[in-house]
Amino acid sequence: MMMRETNLPTSQLANMASFGEECGIFGVYDHSEASALAYHGLFALQHRGQESAGIISYDSSVDRFYQRKDRGLVNRVFKPGDLGVLKGRSAIGHIRYSTTGEDNIVNIQPVMVDCVKGTIGVAHNGNLTNAAELHAELRSKGAIFQTTLDTEVILHLIASSKHKDLYDALEETLQRIDGAFSLLFITDHSLVAVRDRHGVRPLVMGRLDDSVVFASETCALDLVGAKFEREVRPGEMVIVTMKGVASRRFREAAAELSRCIFEYIYFSRPDSILFGRSVYEVQKGLGRELARERPVPADVVIAIPDSGNAAALGYSRESGLDFEMGLVRNHYIGRTFIQNTQLAREVGVKIKLNPVRSLIEGKRLIVVDDSLVRGTTSKKIVKMLKAAGAKEVHLRISSPPYRFPCFYGVDTPSPEHLIASRMSLKEIEQYLEVDSLAYLSCEGLVRVVTGGEPKEGVHFCKACFDGDYRIPVHSLREKGKGALEKK
Amino acid sequence: MMMRETNLPTSQLANMASFGEECGIFGVYDHSEASALAYHGLFALQHRGQESAGIISYDSSVDRFYQRKDRGLVNRVFKPGDLGVLKGRSAIGHIRYSTTGEDNIVNIQPVMVDCVKGTIGVAHNGNLTNAAELHAELRSKGAIFQTTLDTEVILHLIASSKHKDLYDALEETLQRIDGAFSLLFITDHSLVAVRDRHGVRPLVMGRLDDSVVFASETCALDLVGAKFEREVRPGEMVIVTMKGVASRRFREAAAELSRCIFEYIYFSRPDSILFGRSVYEVQKGLGRELARERPVPADVVIAIPDSGNAAALGYSRESGLDFEMGLVRNHYIGRTFIQNTQLAREVGVKIKLNPVRSLIEGKRLIVVDDSLVRGTTSKKIVKMLKAAGAKEVHLRISSPPYRFPCFYGVDTPSPEHLIASRMSLKEIEQYLEVDSLAYLSCEGLVRVVTGGEPKEGVHFCKACFDGDYRIPVHSLREKGKGALEKK
Amino acid sequence: MMMRETNLPTSQLANMASFGEECGIFGVYDHSEASALAYHGLFALQHRGQESAGIISYDSSVDRFYQRKDRGLVNRVFKPGDLGVLKGRSAIGHIRYSTTGEDNIVNIQPVMVDCVKGTIGVAHNGNLTNAAELHAELRSKGAIFQTTLDTEVILHLIASSKHKDLYDALEETLQRIDGAFSLLFITDHSLVAVRDRHGVRPLVMGRLDDSVVFASETCALDLVGAKFEREVRPGEMVIVTMKGVASRRFREAAAELSRCIFEYIYFSRPDSILFGRSVYEVQKGLGRELARERPVPADVVIAIPDSGNAAALGYSRESGLDFEMGLVRNHYIGRTFIQNTQLAREVGVKIKLNPVRSLIEGKRLIVVDDSLVRGTTSKKIVKMLKAAGAKEVHLRISSPPYRFPCFYGVDTPSPEHLIASRMSLKEIEQYLEVDSLAYLSCEGLVRVVTGGEPKEGVHFCKACFDGDYRIPVHSLREKGKGALEKK
Amino acid sequence: MMMRETNLPTSQLANMASFGEECGIFGVYDHSEASALAYHGLFALQHRGQESAGIISYDSSVDRFYQRKDRGLVNRVFKPGDLGVLKGRSAIGHIRYSTTGEDNIVNIQPVMVDCVKGTIGVAHNGNLTNAAELHAELRSKGAIFQTTLDTEVILHLIASSKHKDLYDALEETLQRIDGAFSLLFITDHSLVAVRDRHGVRPLVMGRLDDSVVFASETCALDLVGAKFEREVRPGEMVIVTMKGVASRRFREAAAELSRCIFEYIYFSRPDSILFGRSVYEVQKGLGRELARERPVPADVVIAIPDSGNAAALGYSRESGLDFEMGLVRNHYIGRTFIQNTQLAREVGVKIKLNPVRSLIEGKRLIVVDDSLVRGTTSKKIVKMLKAAGAKEVHLRISSPPYRFPCFYGVDTPSPEHLIASRMSLKEIEQYLEVDSLAYLSCEGLVRVVTGGEPKEGVHFCKACFDGDYRIPVHSLREKGKGALEKK
Repeated sequence: MMMRETNLPTSQLANMASFGEECGIFGVYDHSEASALAYHGLFALQHRGQESAGIISYDSSVDRFYQRKDRGLVNRVFKPGDLGVLKGRSAIGHIRYSTTGEDNIVNIQPVMVDCVKGTIGVAHNGNLTNAAELHAELRSKGAIFQTTLDTEVILHLIASSKHKDLYDALEETLQRIDGAFSLLFITDHSLVAVRDRHGVRPLVMGRLDDSVVFASETCALDLVGAKFEREVRPGEMVIVTMKGVASRRFREAAAELSRCIFEYIYFSRPDSILFGRSVYEVQKGLGRELARERPVPADVVIAIPDSGNAAALGYSRESGLDFEMGLVRNHYIGRTFIQNTQLAREVGVKIKLNPVRSLIEGKRLIVVDDSLVRGTTSKKIVKMLKAAGAKEVHLRISSPPYRFPCFYGVDTPSPEHLIASRMSLKEIEQYLEVDSLAYLSCEGLVRVVTGGEPKEGVHFCKACFDGDYRIPVHSLREKGKGALEKK
Repeated sequence: MMMRETNLPTSQLANMASFGEECGIFGVYDHSEASALAYHGLFALQHRGQESAGIISYDSSVDRFYQRKDRGLVNRVFKPGDLGVLKGRSAIGHIRYSTTGEDNIVNIQPVMVDCVKGTIGVAHNGNLTNAAELHAELRSKGAIFQTTLDTEVILHLIASSKHKDLYDALEETLQRIDGAFSLLFITDHSLVAVRDRHGVRPLVMGRLDDSVVFASETCALDLVGAKFEREVRPGEMVIVTMKGVASRRFREAAAELSRCIFEYIYFSRPDSILFGRSVYEVQKGLGRELARERPVPADVVIAIPDSGNAAALGYSRESGLDFEMGLVRNHYIGRTFIQNTQLAREVGVKIKLNPVRSLIEGKRLIVVDDSLVRGTTSKKIVKMLKAAGAKEVHLRISSPPYRFPCFYGVDTPSPEHLIASRMSLKEIEQYLEVDSLAYLSCEGLVRVVTGGEPKEGVHFCKACFDGDYRIPVHSLREKGKGALEKK
Repeated sequence: MMMRETNLPTSQLANMASFGEECGIFGVYDHSEASALAYHGLFALQHRGQESAGIISYDSSVDRFYQRKDRGLVNRVFKPGDLGVLKGRSAIGHIRYSTTGEDNIVNIQPVMVDCVKGTIGVAHNGNLTNAAELHAELRSKGAIFQTTLDTEVILHLIASSKHKDLYDALEETLQRIDGAFSLLFITDHSLVAVRDRHGVRPLVMGRLDDSVVFASETCALDLVGAKFEREVRPGEMVIVTMKGVASRRFREAAAELSRCIFEYIYFSRPDSILFGRSVYEVQKGLGRELARERPVPADVVIAIPDSGNAAALGYSRESGLDFEMGLVRNHYIGRTFIQNTQLAREVGVKIKLNPVRSLIEGKRLIVVDDSLVRGTTSKKIVKMLKAAGAKEVHLRISSPPYRFPCFYGVDTPSPEHLIASRMSLKEIEQYLEVDSLAYLSCEGLVRVVTGGEPKEGVHFCKACFDGDYRIPVHSLREKGKGALEKK
Repeated sequence: MMMRETNLPTSQLANMASFGEECGIFGVYDHSEASALAYHGLFALQHRGQESAGIISYDSSVDRFYQRKDRGLVNRVFKPGDLGVLKGRSAIGHIRYSTTGEDNIVNIQPVMVDCVKGTIGVAHNGNLTNAAELHAELRSKGAIFQTTLDTEVILHLIASSKHKDLYDALEETLQRIDGAFSLLFITDHSLVAVRDRHGVRPLVMGRLDDSVVFASETCALDLVGAKFEREVRPGEMVIVTMKGVASRRFREAAAELSRCIFEYIYFSRPDSILFGRSVYEVQKGLGRELARERPVPADVVIAIPDSGNAAALGYSRESGLDFEMGLVRNHYIGRTFIQNTQLAREVGVKIKLNPVRSLIEGKRLIVVDDSLVRGTTSKKIVKMLKAAGAKEVHLRISSPPYRFPCFYGVDTPSPEHLIASRMSLKEIEQYLEVDSLAYLSCEGLVRVVTGGEPKEGVHFCKACFDGDYRIPVHSLREKGKGALEKK
């Protein structure tokens, strides 16, 4: 839950390592309200990124592309009237994760370029692991880089490909890049959806009347009224033109997929169907498993809202202990809250979450959250619960200790900020001042996510928990966080 | 729940009947961070009013009052730096309910006047039922009215009282006004808290170190770290000066109190202790009672978040049916959402609430909400649940049919907009397209709220449900909604 | 010119002495676009006040008043759509002078009250000199004061008058108040324009088709296309109803009028006709007179734009020296200019005015401005001109030394901030580092303003120059600036 | 004057012809307040572009570049605090002309890229005439274009140059590009200033203490307190490093320079020294010449402020007729002015300019403006003057008829919107309803601008008046406005 506090190093041009953040993408082909669909689709994906938003549309009747992108939330970036400007029957959109201090408009997606293969717009969710190598190669050949996005590497490869045909050039490009990538391309005659051979980030395809729609999550299909059809498959390019939908395989799917297990835990919305399963049900299952693995005598189960809700329900169901909404969220919190008073510091986390004292006083609490990243907010919540009279606080985390950086599209704090990298379980318990702390085991996590029946060749990436990076990370690892600084 | 959609007639000067809205008040005496306390206190009470906010402070070291008030949410009205301007060790604050179309800055509270009794600031939650009569009397004597607030009547009465002493004049005034009023006054030497003899609106007193604090709800005390001491009693004036706290009784408490029962159902925050009981616990009890009164065979219980949460949990507990979070709230909704597309109309309520299909498909649902006012949003939710595959939808309301206007401080839609006034239960069921609809009974409501043991002389006002107006409403009733128009 | 820098003490309720600022008023009766006319009229009067703006309209078809007022410039206060809300065929509007630090919305005009005489809205330009006395009297009788405006005193007097008839009550009120007042009243059947018997502040009447229009200056009539008819006469009430225009005299005009001579010098727009003469022509005449009175050998005449423009032209014409636009104004200045750099302090006045070096280098300059209040900006300009190579700088002020506070509707700095009160001519010359400084004489000023032919009984108030307060200032004088503080 | 109304076609990626607008650039090397200098410098150049602004700075102590750019005016783009972020001792800045409908953030300058030659930032004023050809060539070699700026072509040429040395690569690039370009480059060790061999756009160099400063106009040097040193010479690269200032000639200066004559008439600020002469003096000289060429019996000379001010003064001086400020500008005009009323349409131009009736009534007026582009606003002004009682209106334009598009860095309306391209002099007179209209002759213009003594090899581009495009325009001409559309 606390990952959103991450304070990223200021990005910099020529800074390859800040490539990639958690993002959301959406695309639609041949619909009379293409840009309105993209707008709503991005809105449904807003939880995947709050830093910036953008839409590119294409109007075949006048052979023109239109784009609108800016910093901020979807409903700040797009003003009434903007959708009228974004004409045409096809569109792609992108929203990006909010990173503190980064205020650079050149990195806003989607990116649109003109090149010998035509005008191409692209929206990217993921992270290339060999971007630095490709960047160096392209640079030495005279390429110029205006952003710090690995997406730009992809476009350079397409433009400079010897293949004359766009799709051949694209296929060649996709064969050269490594890592995690769910991509949507818009051209003057097509929409193309791509997913890396490991299937790391989600990308689904749906239908709305006769139109084809793509989105990072099914909740975006739901919102616009589109019907889920299938996932874009690992290693697949789906090319939509006026002739219909064509599928092309640019690489064999990896023998063992590396679907991001953290999507279930943290990123995806509970109302989405992810990799074939309901996120809500998986999260509830994690809570059940946690209750089996880590029981503790207590009076009541509460969640850190909203991140721990489903897991807490599951824990309650399995343990037989009552679930209560012991923390009330204040919905009026905004960024302008005045902080510079002594009182504000004392008030702290209570401004967002207030305990229901009658549920807490004299009780032994099981407090469930989805993850524990830095631990600073959890510490404050525990303190607040104790002040409200809690007799015992048992913190239960419905995922394993988060200890390793992600190189596949998630901006993670550096290890020295990850509490589980710095401290032993005992130390964390002392730091948080809880009566007990327990995580879900890696085995339990896999058991729940695979429904207890792991299929052959189906694998999840859980490198953030166990450090097992199955997709080569090339130079990213040894550079470590140092790679985030220039040269 | 839908009351917040209420579209009030534009207020107008000399329009006595639009007096009074649901509001929140906060006061503090003799604290080094008085205005910061008021700011945070109002923030905790924001759910009671989003139209405007204001704070008056008094600095005895220079004998000056300061005020800052404007339209908008608390954290929009007060900018960093404002708290530095609001100097002094005592302060009162006010937030007001949001009403559409009303954009008149003269009605923003607190109101401060200079008169022969000195400078007096006042914040008011409630509604005077004889304001029109007093207004006419004062007017005929040459008084001028700059607002449409009944608060102004109170100030005129104080100023024109024959009593020379401020507190005698105040007492006389409080004896002349009828209806519901929780009031906070600030003067150059005191803070005064008042509650009408019927005890309609809440008002509590707390301590923070050596300072005295007053607030509409205990959640505001909690936020600023004050300790709850007691309620201001019906018919009591609490006068706080440098000499200490004095209590004075301006009227005997009514033999039968008229505490607003709707505060438990809708207005107060679940983490508040209201009239001596936890709001959350009462709401959960209402759900339990509803389950006993109105059982129905079903698979799962879900709430309309967040209004129906606690009652749904209670219903689930009593019925033995699983509680699930079947509707996911989108936290990024803002007022600038683009509405002018065909798609936006189709998307409708889904933009705020999205169903978790896996919980709903093929299921018989019990959907719990706290109240049913107009029914328009509920209708959309039911439609959305059916579209998500619900086999049956049984709507359960944890309060009786809302049928009568409130004359004691709540802005209610006119009866023709109250669905329970216009339609029979059967008709509402058809209108909402639910498989069944059931309300809690009035008896059940009272049973829960009184904890099953109604004390003698303790009564709740439930006129909005049964039309039994125990506090005289004077001319308000016959004028009905017509009184809202001029003359 | 520098008066607009005035830093007023924070206003406070019960603070009678901050009554009155320089303002602009506008009214229209019986026109289909009444509020649009008021909006444009206020826009034309914006130079008279930038702190706040407001409009009250009345729609007889539904017998309702509407109002909209807020802090800020006219085109910030009124948003598209607001004019549609301000319905009806009659309207009055008000704009107020910008005062630093004053941020109190209760003082925004027009003020509207409900009283026994009906609903009355009023817009006021001027200052009552016996407001404190009347305030004390009304207060002792039980009146409450919500603002620090003397306008409120007027409304109390009307409301509490023994006369039943509104116009009799108004007449009685106007007979009781002293000082400077141009007033516009709106009622449910009339528009009333009033001007004090001394004729201090301007107020003109015009016709637009069949509608009657009132404004502080003729430039507002010009903008809306109305034809100037006449001034509202000193001591006159003009009552406009559906029956037509009636004139009523509440007091004999003073034997010697006290028209504000500073209106010609500073307040009114050059394109206005004021007290029967073109402001531009008068200002040019002041420059000519100044050239006659205070010649000096020089090469070129330049103005401080735009305040000194017309006088500089006149000086040039009379002296035979070339007029040049030696200072270029930057039109992009806004309030958000970043100030907190060392450079910003050095840049100083150059950000607003840049010298045209080719006109200045090696030249003996005559620099003309309309007035000299504090002298701080003039000092910077002189320094800048010298830095640009000016051989000599001769500052010529087209009015006499400004030495005394105004009690008739202008917010003036306290004498200790008026450079001419603090220093001798010699000292000012040294302070400003000019080669010579000269003011216009009082006699010269009167000569120009009266066109050389002073009519009997026609007088101008020039108290700010000579301290000769012909209209009684009652307690204002001895209280001096101390009256601005409470008690 | 009316050129600023130009409604440009929406830009589009791959749309080479919308390259280039009128802009302003500023650079500073080795100063402790580099970004504050750039901020103020851009502020002084704001008249050259209001669409967007940006600054890139470089901090050698940490070897990092910083950038901040966005749409809007300089004091909107940069917030307090931004200058603190833009660290380092060198910086370049850019402001761009406001074009309606163009809302694309990718085109905001300065542009910064990473390439094999290092990180390079560039700010560009001008327009390349062979950009389309170079773009096509680069594109065919695999280059990608993210903007529609010809600046991007320059960067691609540098990056892909065979020369290893940055300055050799830059020199080669500058030899390949044609047209008008004043450029500032920032690198990790230098600042480079470049001006095309024809000297079309201005670029001056100054000193501030030990720092070197560059700016489009001298008024920016004046504001920051820098001393003018010299112009960057046509065909020159000035390379500033810690070793000092080096000059390198990439091309011989053209035998006949093509300095933009319209810079004197319209773009540059009157307080700037342009191509060695005071803009104010030149404009006044144009007015004098116009009076000699096109005299007419009249009573008074007035200017359209501020564009016609200096020329009107010159006309007055030469003709012996009085100059008067007959039109008063309203300084409170903002973009939010409410337009949707019948009245607003009637009010029209009066909202910005109001005539001083006493100067106009019954007079024969000579009205002077600097240029006549579309004629729509002039028509309204003439109508207004006649309504104010002008007996005759003689419009005098201090430049020749503007008839041809500019291909060297100015966005001009298409010929069908240029009134002088569409109508004969007679027709324009009738359209404007003037008593006479006269332009300055081309010969007169040259005579004034060259000071009557045209030096050998010194030439001005006046193609907008005579269509004589001395610098090859390559494919731009035949494509005409069609080139602005894709393909």
